[in-house]
Amino acid sequence: MQRIFFNSEVTTSSPPGRPGGTLIVIKIGGNIVDDEVKLSSFLQSFAGVDTKKILVHGGGKVATKIGETLGIESKYVDGRRITDAATIDLVTMVYAGLINKKIIALLQAFNCNAIGVTGADGNLIPAKKRDVVQKAFPSGGARPDDSVGRGLEGAIDYGFAGDVQSDKINAQSWSRLLDNGFIPVVAPITHDGNGQLLNTNADTIAQEVAKAMSSLYDVSLIYSFEKAGVLLDVNDENSVIKKLTPMYYAELKTPEGTGGARIFAGMIPKLDNAFAALNSGVKKVVIGKAEHLNDLINGESGTSITNS
Amino acid sequence: MQRIFFNSEVTTSSPPGRPGGTLIVIKIGGNIVDDEVKLSSFLQSFAGVDTKKILVHGGGKVATKIGETLGIESKYVDGRRITDAATIDLVTMVYAGLINKKIIALLQAFNCNAIGVTGADGNLIPAKKRDVVQKAFPSGGARPDDSVGRGLEGAIDYGFAGDVQSDKINAQSWSRLLDNGFIPVVAPITHDGNGQLLNTNADTIAQEVAKAMSSLYDVSLIYSFEKAGVLLDVNDENSVIKKLTPMYYAELKTPEGTGGARIFAGMIPKLDNAFAALNSGVKKVVIGKAEHLNDLINGESGTSITNS
Repeated sequence: MQRIFFNSEVTTSSPPGRPGGTLIVIKIGGNIVDDEVKLSSFLQSFAGVDTKKILVHGGGKVATKIGETLGIESKYVDGRRITDAATIDLVTMVYAGLINKKIIALLQAFNCNAIGVTGADGNLIPAKKRDVVQKAFPSGGARPDDSVGRGLEGAIDYGFAGDVQSDKINAQSWSRLLDNGFIPVVAPITHDGNGQLLNTNADTIAQEVAKAMSSLYDVSLIYSFEKAGVLLDVNDENSVIKKLTPMYYAELKTPEGTGGARIFAGMIPKLDNAFAALNSGVKKVVIGKAEHLNDLINGESGTSITNS
Repeated sequence: MQRIFFNSEVTTSSPPGRPGGTLIVIKIGGNIVDDEVKLSSFLQSFAGVDTKKILVHGGGKVATKIGETLGIESKYVDGRRITDAATIDLVTMVYAGLINKKIIALLQAFNCNAIGVTGADGNLIPAKKRDVVQKAFPSGGARPDDSVGRGLEGAIDYGFAGDVQSDKINAQSWSRLLDNGFIPVVAPITHDGNGQLLNTNADTIAQEVAKAMSSLYDVSLIYSFEKAGVLLDVNDENSVIKKLTPMYYAELKTPEGTGGARIFAGMIPKLDNAFAALNSGVKKVVIGKAEHLNDLINGESGTSITNS
């Protein structure tokens, strides 16, 4: 397991501080964005966080709703949205326009000098249009009939989906905003550098930005959403795992392990992101309830993802 | 005429330079925004302008089109859009999302480090919701029946329309972006500081930002649109007025003047804005064709608005 090899590089005990000081990158989930009361309360807490900080927000259900009214059908393959030309316009409008600017106006009302950005603004998050994927079939399995899965079982074109070019994120550009008192609020849209906007997963953006900023700051990455943390039992909010190590994670997601696969499938990309972030210099990753933002920051709530 | 009293303050001959150097504020009209080919060509010219610069864009027709599909009716009183709750969401999506981010992605492709903002971002343009206006009737005229004008002849509530609070625009905040190599691209949305986004005329935004920045920079304000300049004959593109002084302007818009009112009514708010800008420290105002951006900057095309 690659992540274990990096253990020695990621100690949480008195690491040498980075020149930029502390930076917290906070991702807020779509369910919070959809709930006006919870969103406002979260933003008030966020405004009060007394350190350099970046907020990354997801999309919420409003894009789907507006898309339906506009006659834009949502298409998914393997849980991933297919971003056709109409859809990239839709998500740009809703994520970078409606949601982002409502958040900005609220944060400004809470005396937080927020500035809304996408990955195109200031070229903050360069990305690459995802290649068309030739879908793999189980070895020995028959190739499914092409009529299955709306004809998408062969090659999959995700359309205007953007994969972040990690090595091209310019931490200096971000810090020029941060060092001048601006609090970046990021909508999950990137660009390819040739004029095309792209749709990128907000969890991934949070992780990639946190990683890139680790060259200049001591970065904490917080995924805040509607649940209290990573749950042993998805139906029991009291079953929060306080500390998740790579070994424990492997055990939890392996069906052969004691008790079988106990981790909620929807959490796996988030957790993979979290460990990848730790292995790339991020000091701390915490997953938990948006309502408990301060406790998540202080380590008194949620699940701490840690390499040891 | 108030503007004449200010003449002595606004000399165009060798003024002492402002510490920030030269800044060009360019407004681009909705007709250019609507035309993909013209927009791209304009943005390429804009990218090549070798000085500090700010771009302000209008909305174009796309908001009305998307609004119609969403069932949001456009309402106007005296040529001004009434911004109800659905409309402020609509224009925020379209202006600050769709249009702004497409412009940003194109400028980035032309190696221009653009960053998209509204007046809410960084609190760059504080505004105030327009007061409900008690409409004045001609003296001696009968109060029109309330059923006339869709019941709007009495009090007019413009809804979420924002009037810029000129004295609260913080030139230092803008210059923190400019001095760090960001090129601000402004969507015509402002905020009231209490969490409410507001709809504000893009011409007005360009003028207000140009005025505010005059404390730090030698500011030129350029209104670029689909016409060659201020025309003596609205149907003759060759009738461009090269130089427009307050006296000539007064003559052109007075029906009693020689030849009658010869100025196109739609130009009057733009020209009033232009003279107001000159009277508040802006060094130069030029109105002309977006395709001739470089010539507008060099004073070789369009109409120069000048106090003397």
